[in-house]
Amino acid sequence: MQMTDIIARKRDGGELSREEIQFFIEGYTRGSIPDYQASALLMAIVWRGMTRRETLDLTLAMMHSGETLDLSSISGVKADKHSTGGVGDKTSLALLPMVAAQGVHMAKMSGRGLGHTGGTIDKLESFPGFSCALSDEAFLSQVQRVGFAIAGQTADLDPADKKLYALRDVTGTVSSIPLIVSSIMSKKLAAGADVIVLDVKCGDGAFMKTESDARTLAGEMVEIGKLAGRRTVACITGMDQPLGRAVGNALEVKEAMALLRGDFGGDLLELCLTLGSCILTESGAAASDGEARLKLERGIADGSALAKLAEFVAAQGGDARAVYDASLLPSAPVTVPVPSPADGYVSAIAAERSGLVSMHLGGGRATKDSEIDLSVGFVLNKKSGDAVKKGESLAIVHARDAESAARAARDLADCFSFSDARPELKPIIRDIIR
Amino acid sequence: MQMTDIIARKRDGGELSREEIQFFIEGYTRGSIPDYQASALLMAIVWRGMTRRETLDLTLAMMHSGETLDLSSISGVKADKHSTGGVGDKTSLALLPMVAAQGVHMAKMSGRGLGHTGGTIDKLESFPGFSCALSDEAFLSQVQRVGFAIAGQTADLDPADKKLYALRDVTGTVSSIPLIVSSIMSKKLAAGADVIVLDVKCGDGAFMKTESDARTLAGEMVEIGKLAGRRTVACITGMDQPLGRAVGNALEVKEAMALLRGDFGGDLLELCLTLGSCILTESGAAASDGEARLKLERGIADGSALAKLAEFVAAQGGDARAVYDASLLPSAPVTVPVPSPADGYVSAIAAERSGLVSMHLGGGRATKDSEIDLSVGFVLNKKSGDAVKKGESLAIVHARDAESAARAARDLADCFSFSDARPELKPIIRDIIR
Repeated sequence: MQMTDIIARKRDGGELSREEIQFFIEGYTRGSIPDYQASALLMAIVWRGMTRRETLDLTLAMMHSGETLDLSSISGVKADKHSTGGVGDKTSLALLPMVAAQGVHMAKMSGRGLGHTGGTIDKLESFPGFSCALSDEAFLSQVQRVGFAIAGQTADLDPADKKLYALRDVTGTVSSIPLIVSSIMSKKLAAGADVIVLDVKCGDGAFMKTESDARTLAGEMVEIGKLAGRRTVACITGMDQPLGRAVGNALEVKEAMALLRGDFGGDLLELCLTLGSCILTESGAAASDGEARLKLERGIADGSALAKLAEFVAAQGGDARAVYDASLLPSAPVTVPVPSPADGYVSAIAAERSGLVSMHLGGGRATKDSEIDLSVGFVLNKKSGDAVKKGESLAIVHARDAESAARAARDLADCFSFSDARPELKPIIRDIIR
Repeated sequence: MQMTDIIARKRDGGELSREEIQFFIEGYTRGSIPDYQASALLMAIVWRGMTRRETLDLTLAMMHSGETLDLSSISGVKADKHSTGGVGDKTSLALLPMVAAQGVHMAKMSGRGLGHTGGTIDKLESFPGFSCALSDEAFLSQVQRVGFAIAGQTADLDPADKKLYALRDVTGTVSSIPLIVSSIMSKKLAAGADVIVLDVKCGDGAFMKTESDARTLAGEMVEIGKLAGRRTVACITGMDQPLGRAVGNALEVKEAMALLRGDFGGDLLELCLTLGSCILTESGAAASDGEARLKLERGIADGSALAKLAEFVAAQGGDARAVYDASLLPSAPVTVPVPSPADGYVSAIAAERSGLVSMHLGGGRATKDSEIDLSVGFVLNKKSGDAVKKGESLAIVHARDAESAARAARDLADCFSFSDARPELKPIIRDIIR
């Protein structure tokens, strides 16, 4: 088999066979197929697309390019959750304890953040001593014992995706449905869960800017998950403004803790209840969405979800007292308010740009090697649809010094738009695709 | 400027600026832009194409990626000729002396052959002692003194094309009009001639299989040549069967010599007269095609064209006696006839496959490092449209041993098709685009 023939077939709009796709993934992972042939094929795939059969074969070939995790030693149904990423997305921090408190095991691999969206691992490291570096054995035993665990992705899991993702990033070949689907789903399949729930975000602060693109991606991922034998559901959710109120690592942890204490509602709670209901019903832990929501709400009210978070933090080496005492988490020395420049209603908060405000404060990574400051970020006092008076505080910026605070306050104020009439808002949950 | 932005713009169907194209060509030639980004951009160009302005800027950037040849020290108009390649294409060997005998200077860079089409340099090395390794000074002074010279392309001329061509070959990005045009025209422009005549072949044995594709390529090359300030003409010519009768290096030299002696007509003579007329009229050496043809025919009849070939061979270190005595050229030890399996008319001779017969005899290169045997090949006794009787010789195979001769004779016989009625043949010259 010749790589040049494979490139030419896709270039000419043809369909690649399973053998050809395996030849490519195995050869590229091993290094016998060079980057320059891989990038030519990737661009031909961006151009010509892939059939569902090709996308499935690509996903499976990538999944099998390295080790796969065997969760069969854990009793019961194992679930996993993936978000396509957004600003202020601390969902996993609240959702996993909520679900685990209802007896469904969650085994999650996670990553660090890059650019304006933060990573779950970075956020969790706000807990003093916390580590995501777990051996496979420690990971499995913790899922069984505690109900959930979050580990950093090991180098042995889906090495094809690591190589391909790095190549796509520098060759203009990121934006392709089959390439995005195979990248996400190969990792989820390799991680071994029975139930996969996907949070596909759309809007200004998401990778998918339109609901229609998000729907296409979600539909394809659900089909590929099912064809691979996993119960797979996708929620299409809005990312037109930051999720919840906090953006920044420790600030987001504090917000998730507030939610688990029952002190926090709004879009974040609605998203956690929806994703959690999908997991509980798909896992057989609830007969209906209504029953699932009731259980999840009860887990918050009776403190069992928060206790589950504390158990989890302790199991991964963190200081569990911080779950009940937020003053033990990193906090920034400088806080400044962002006064509203206008009377009226907040009509929009530019999500991507506000994420960049947090990144520039030091809370996100501009490049892979950037050090991040866990304490900085901002907390919104006003969200889209809220009435506001001129001079009233739109948000509080948390910064390491007065200068960066002042700049961030100016930049964050620019992210707000205002209107005289109360704007019509779309719901956070746009659709559920099963 | 970022290469990723350039790739993304072309991927999305946008137009690249002159600065972006120059950034790519300079960076890729220098090595600061890696192969994997170049191949992604090349595939995006195959996909999206290029406007004429982009193609011109690409051609000029490639032309200026290395040295350019300054022919201004040579008096009068300087002409160059390029063929897109075909089986049995010994045109340059006859055409250049014909034109030079009429006082028009020809300064030609040439290459070696790869695959089923031979290279002019390989063919010329049939003359004992002949060399195409000329310094720029020797090249220029020979063009002035003798009227024409043929040199191998130096490493300093158009290094961008050398790198890009090698990359395109292994990344499925050969078949793109702007990439083909810029590859050919950047070299021709760098070689400095005032008049450029292009032989764009179409048919089974050519790179362009259809007349329509050849017409598109020819039209684009002529426009780019004109926009770059050169008088440029393209002839669209047929390559449905081998050109002339001989295929194989020394055999083709002998055929070119026979043509210059006035002993050979047919499609090869018609092609040489047509291309030669274009050169003479564009150079101002003839007022009309009719006058040009008359001059070229007279140069054959009075022996001046053949004398010019001898002068050229001697100037480049070759044994000029071989121009008048073909027995001094390499000849194969074994010759076998190819008997016709049928009565009727030859309706077709598969050009590409017959070229492969010569390659397998040892006359062409399967890979860049193959050694070639100058003596082997075949000479057709019958061409398309000729009447033939069963058992009559269709061709004579020239081989280094009986075994390869027998296999070649079988394979060559398979290249012939027959019909009961005389087939309608297309003329060798399909069109001339000025």
